[in-house]
Amino acid sequence: MLHTTVNGRQHPRPGTGGRFGRWLRRMSVALLALALLPVAQAEDGYELWLRYRPLEAGQQLRYRPHLAQLVAPASTPTQRVAREELLRGLGGLLGQAPAVADAPSAAGAVLVGTPASLPALAGLGLDLEGLGDEGYLIRSVELDGRPATVVAANSDVGALYGSFHLLRLLQTRQPLDALDLRQAPKVKLRVLNHWDDLDRYVERGYSGQSIWNWHLLPDWLDPRYTDYARANASIGINGAVLNNVNANAQILTPMYLAKVAALAGVLRPYGIRVYLSARFSAPMEIGGMDTADPLDPAVQRWWKDKAAEIYARIPDFGGFLVKANSEGQPGPQDFGRTHADGANMLAEVLAPHGGVVMWRAFVYSHEEPDDRHKQAYTEFVPLDGSFRDNVLVQVKNGAIDFQPREPFHPLFGAMPKTPLMMEFQITKEYLGFATHLVYLGPMYEEVLRADTHAAGPGSTVAKVVDGSLDGHAISGIAGVANIGTDRNWSGSHFDQANWYVFGRLAWDPYLDSRTVAEEWVRMTFSADPAFVEPVVAMMMGSHQAAVDYMTPLGLHHLMGRGHHYGPGPWVEGGPRADWTSVYYHRATREGIGFDRTTSGSDAVSQYAPPVAEVFNDPERVPEDFLLWFHHRPWTSRVSSGRSLWDELVHRYSRGVAQVEWMQRTWDGLRGHVDAERHHQIERFLAIQRKEAQWWRDASIAYFQTFSRLPLPEGEAPPEHPLEYYKALEFPHAPGDTQ
Amino acid sequence: MLHTTVNGRQHPRPGTGGRFGRWLRRMSVALLALALLPVAQAEDGYELWLRYRPLEAGQQLRYRPHLAQLVAPASTPTQRVAREELLRGLGGLLGQAPAVADAPSAAGAVLVGTPASLPALAGLGLDLEGLGDEGYLIRSVELDGRPATVVAANSDVGALYGSFHLLRLLQTRQPLDALDLRQAPKVKLRVLNHWDDLDRYVERGYSGQSIWNWHLLPDWLDPRYTDYARANASIGINGAVLNNVNANAQILTPMYLAKVAALAGVLRPYGIRVYLSARFSAPMEIGGMDTADPLDPAVQRWWKDKAAEIYARIPDFGGFLVKANSEGQPGPQDFGRTHADGANMLAEVLAPHGGVVMWRAFVYSHEEPDDRHKQAYTEFVPLDGSFRDNVLVQVKNGAIDFQPREPFHPLFGAMPKTPLMMEFQITKEYLGFATHLVYLGPMYEEVLRADTHAAGPGSTVAKVVDGSLDGHAISGIAGVANIGTDRNWSGSHFDQANWYVFGRLAWDPYLDSRTVAEEWVRMTFSADPAFVEPVVAMMMGSHQAAVDYMTPLGLHHLMGRGHHYGPGPWVEGGPRADWTSVYYHRATREGIGFDRTTSGSDAVSQYAPPVAEVFNDPERVPEDFLLWFHHRPWTSRVSSGRSLWDELVHRYSRGVAQVEWMQRTWDGLRGHVDAERHHQIERFLAIQRKEAQWWRDASIAYFQTFSRLPLPEGEAPPEHPLEYYKALEFPHAPGDTQ
Repeated sequence: MLHTTVNGRQHPRPGTGGRFGRWLRRMSVALLALALLPVAQAEDGYELWLRYRPLEAGQQLRYRPHLAQLVAPASTPTQRVAREELLRGLGGLLGQAPAVADAPSAAGAVLVGTPASLPALAGLGLDLEGLGDEGYLIRSVELDGRPATVVAANSDVGALYGSFHLLRLLQTRQPLDALDLRQAPKVKLRVLNHWDDLDRYVERGYSGQSIWNWHLLPDWLDPRYTDYARANASIGINGAVLNNVNANAQILTPMYLAKVAALAGVLRPYGIRVYLSARFSAPMEIGGMDTADPLDPAVQRWWKDKAAEIYARIPDFGGFLVKANSEGQPGPQDFGRTHADGANMLAEVLAPHGGVVMWRAFVYSHEEPDDRHKQAYTEFVPLDGSFRDNVLVQVKNGAIDFQPREPFHPLFGAMPKTPLMMEFQITKEYLGFATHLVYLGPMYEEVLRADTHAAGPGSTVAKVVDGSLDGHAISGIAGVANIGTDRNWSGSHFDQANWYVFGRLAWDPYLDSRTVAEEWVRMTFSADPAFVEPVVAMMMGSHQAAVDYMTPLGLHHLMGRGHHYGPGPWVEGGPRADWTSVYYHRATREGIGFDRTTSGSDAVSQYAPPVAEVFNDPERVPEDFLLWFHHRPWTSRVSSGRSLWDELVHRYSRGVAQVEWMQRTWDGLRGHVDAERHHQIERFLAIQRKEAQWWRDASIAYFQTFSRLPLPEGEAPPEHPLEYYKALEFPHAPGDTQ
Repeated sequence: MLHTTVNGRQHPRPGTGGRFGRWLRRMSVALLALALLPVAQAEDGYELWLRYRPLEAGQQLRYRPHLAQLVAPASTPTQRVAREELLRGLGGLLGQAPAVADAPSAAGAVLVGTPASLPALAGLGLDLEGLGDEGYLIRSVELDGRPATVVAANSDVGALYGSFHLLRLLQTRQPLDALDLRQAPKVKLRVLNHWDDLDRYVERGYSGQSIWNWHLLPDWLDPRYTDYARANASIGINGAVLNNVNANAQILTPMYLAKVAALAGVLRPYGIRVYLSARFSAPMEIGGMDTADPLDPAVQRWWKDKAAEIYARIPDFGGFLVKANSEGQPGPQDFGRTHADGANMLAEVLAPHGGVVMWRAFVYSHEEPDDRHKQAYTEFVPLDGSFRDNVLVQVKNGAIDFQPREPFHPLFGAMPKTPLMMEFQITKEYLGFATHLVYLGPMYEEVLRADTHAAGPGSTVAKVVDGSLDGHAISGIAGVANIGTDRNWSGSHFDQANWYVFGRLAWDPYLDSRTVAEEWVRMTFSADPAFVEPVVAMMMGSHQAAVDYMTPLGLHHLMGRGHHYGPGPWVEGGPRADWTSVYYHRATREGIGFDRTTSGSDAVSQYAPPVAEVFNDPERVPEDFLLWFHHRPWTSRVSSGRSLWDELVHRYSRGVAQVEWMQRTWDGLRGHVDAERHHQIERFLAIQRKEAQWWRDASIAYFQTFSRLPLPEGEAPPEHPLEYYKALEFPHAPGDTQ
């Protein structure tokens, strides 16, 4: 009992005589708690936001009476992980875990379960209707005259979600008195897309290798898989597409399906289903067939058998994600069929098993379009109404490709008969990779709150995505994961916030990103307002800063070719015009910007008229999208009163200045956070500062060759001549497509 | 002072009134020590053998009087890291760090330094002669009538090595009374070869990505680099070749040299020099020249300028490792020059800066040889005496390629005028990758102790390598690193032992591998004899087990093509005969084995006559090399009295049985080690068991098609038919050449 257990090892019991023995006997519960802490972690970020370090003593005293006893059944795997998480979390936060009891017998009991798993809940008159399969409520009640807290749901996974919410209340220092919380997810499928290859390379990954060690699966189940599942469950993510959308058909072979099944077994207790990216030509590559034509009965039979084989191994398999006829991937068009033909064929074989097809709308044809912006809309809108009801069309937030800022994709609102799934990018392909502090919450929020006007004012993208606008039974949000083998999971400490905010907004697309940022900071770093406030300010200003120093005023797609690292506004030539920068910025001696107005490519007309009118008008278009929709003279005036050229330079400089402000702010927070994380973030901010300057200088040097205008008063000239920037090469930058 | 510091964060001081306050005030030094422990790690293997967990209380009491005070100057970086390591190590092991003092003032002082750094050492009459630049002594002395311990050296790095030795004494529970230890390395260059590409892919790497994050260097210096340096310094490794021998010339560009210089800065305090693999054609690839002819004055000038550029950044740069004219790499032969021409040209430009060239002898020509075994000898022996004196020729331990067991390379002893550097492989390319428990110490030891008879009996490989046989001024041992980003560094817990034993044998090639194994087990896991003894037995038997279940009786090169994962004795065809298995085993209806006798390829004659005679004689050749040197009938008798066929099957089965014994032994050690590491090792042993069976079954099924003999009584037939094994494919097995 009094053995000092440090880090899980039993050390021999010291003699109980003498001074040490007397001291040992005097040892209080507090010491025991200290010694029995779960194995402590270095402050390396591995724990993410599930960082159950002891709360301030006053908070512990305040919370303990509410959490004296835990009544949580543990007869299913999901029940067990919920109970373990509560014991771990409360034990860490409070310094001692609550006593576990089969039934409430003391003040401060916490009851966690469903009416089926915990009969004591049945008599409390809890209104569980409307919570659905995944919702929960947390309520302060009285039981036999004693105060108690219930975390109740209709399903085990609902109770698990509620358990994480309860822990979050402590982590964010919320009161536990008079609780009356109800939560149910507004979106059904909340899914991570891992762009992970079978050799563990991660496309657009900046945080090490794939966390899936395919070579050692199914025999070795890395404990990290469990921590991955915990983190996802804590924010309500309920699906994971394990492999890259640029898919390898091998994943569908028996050897790999055994590995997938093993992972599914780890994730299942946490309410997470696995999905796979299916290569459309798999019947040819691993099936020995000479076609993958979706209307060919033999092809259909192959997929039907494959689905049966998968479900025999993984009864709750989620379904397929498909990237077809895009960037060289095979698809139904190779056989003269439509996207609907392809999606429906797969949907047909999955339907009997309850699976779905997530069919990506990120397509562009082999021919170079006059404006790539228009292509997905052009191809998909005519298909609205022709998809089976277990098909979702997965649409990137904007029409180009995860640029620092894009207007919402014109498909949102334009396919009312089809559930449109949002595809956000969590990994920062175009946003500085892992090192730049860019909190994506405001970007996600901006898109979700954008009004499509599809069914009149208030037809926000969020309402399209959650299915409420058009009354869809299924709905989904996908995020391209930023998770890898790096110790801190996401490549940097602040990039964890992007995983977090993605999950929180997938659960509730109406949350505001500032609230989520504050929540995350409190859970991850510190609840000290002197820390929380400036750090949240850093986060909330960080996206605009990146837009400013990379692609201000609606510029886009100006990154280095292929790897997308650093500025490359001069990129031209190569296989396709729409893979160059000059295609997008269209700078000339006179002006800059892509004319997508009715007198240009007319992409604006893909938006509902009230939106199109605004985007079409250079005076009314949000200035952040000015050059996205308009080609404007260098000397034209913008709202600040500056010329376009001056404003452009001003915004580049403003972005750099914002990073400098973040550096100063962070330097001032030394001592508010452990030295280890403070140091890494400080170094990463220095990299961001250097690269922001590089972006500004290279971009200004380049665009000045067109504008031939002087820099505004007080603006420093680029550090190097343009040729210096153009000569930089990064053949080994991470994340490029293999 | 009484703040409870947990994991480096300051928590608010709890009120000092009340029960908690009284308890706090009663808190003893022991509690303080517990609370102030360096950030505790999960038992995930990250700490390697530098695992400074508290010793048993009795041991602590025994050691503390010897370690009451630390007198260690800290005015140079190396002095500082030595002092920090001692404070960290002693603090962890003893529960409290010794007091730091400028001069010894109490009993139990530990003095660490050089006569220059610590004048108190000067008067002690220590015999530091003969310790050289890197040696040290540890001695119990009396100072002003008080017992003390000195760790003295001629250099800071010697004192650092001595500090690690002192810690090792505690970790292995050695007495600290009457110490009188002298240590100096027997080999000058003790170098890790990282086969790491610039995109972080590791060739033959089974432990994640390269630990060098080139993309974030030089701005972000991962703390892991420091822990890497600590681990290496603790075993005396003093050099690291940072990039793959299949080299990319980019490493020599200014952008990468800035990154290399940053790493050199981290490693320098630990006595570790950086080296680079130089691509011989770099003057063409990054220099814009149209030749890399080593006799071309412009090429020579390019390299001279490049060397100057490197040394301007890295004054203690170690030099170049070169793989030339081998497996497609460019080299001097491309320009009609010899290996010596190439090596000497580079040596010439490095000499003024003190650098060396490590020129690899692992070569084979474009033409298929009658016996690849002979090629390195054939090409290099004629060059003996023609290399500059700062050239070492780096020779793999055997003539083929890091097979599970090879006879020593015939070059050892055959080039007396040239320093021959040993190249061992630490990563287990042909030995089960990361999962198989195979301790390489006995394999290294077998080679080092092999007698070349080059200068009469006793001319061991160790004496060739350490330079003592032929009186060379420089000497070296290289190990192809098994280090990656995996949390446990090496892909498995036991693979850490191979890094460890490599370093220890590089320091002293006459150490025996069992002693090193025991040392490692005590430092890494537990000093409990009930644990140490069986685990050392597992380790010591593990290499023979792997040889048995993979390539018994001298068979070799039978692995799957390319990736080398699993059995592929049937591999034939493809670009070169000497890249197939059938080239090496030469099984026929009548017999099996490669006839390298005087009536065969005559490779035996590359050894000194006393060795050649033994290898040439099927009755005298060690049975472990029988089929390496002889083609033998299936029905011939071996020493056991069995037929060759029966013995082959017997050895395959014996290998599997040994793994089963390891499994049982390990299962019985549950509770002697933390659950986390016990579990992973248990799972890895299960993989090893499965794969050993696979090796046995596939090999027997295949060779039986030649022998057409029944299995011996009691031997189970293969689980599957041969075609099953031949059909297995592993396109994404890790570590294959890119």
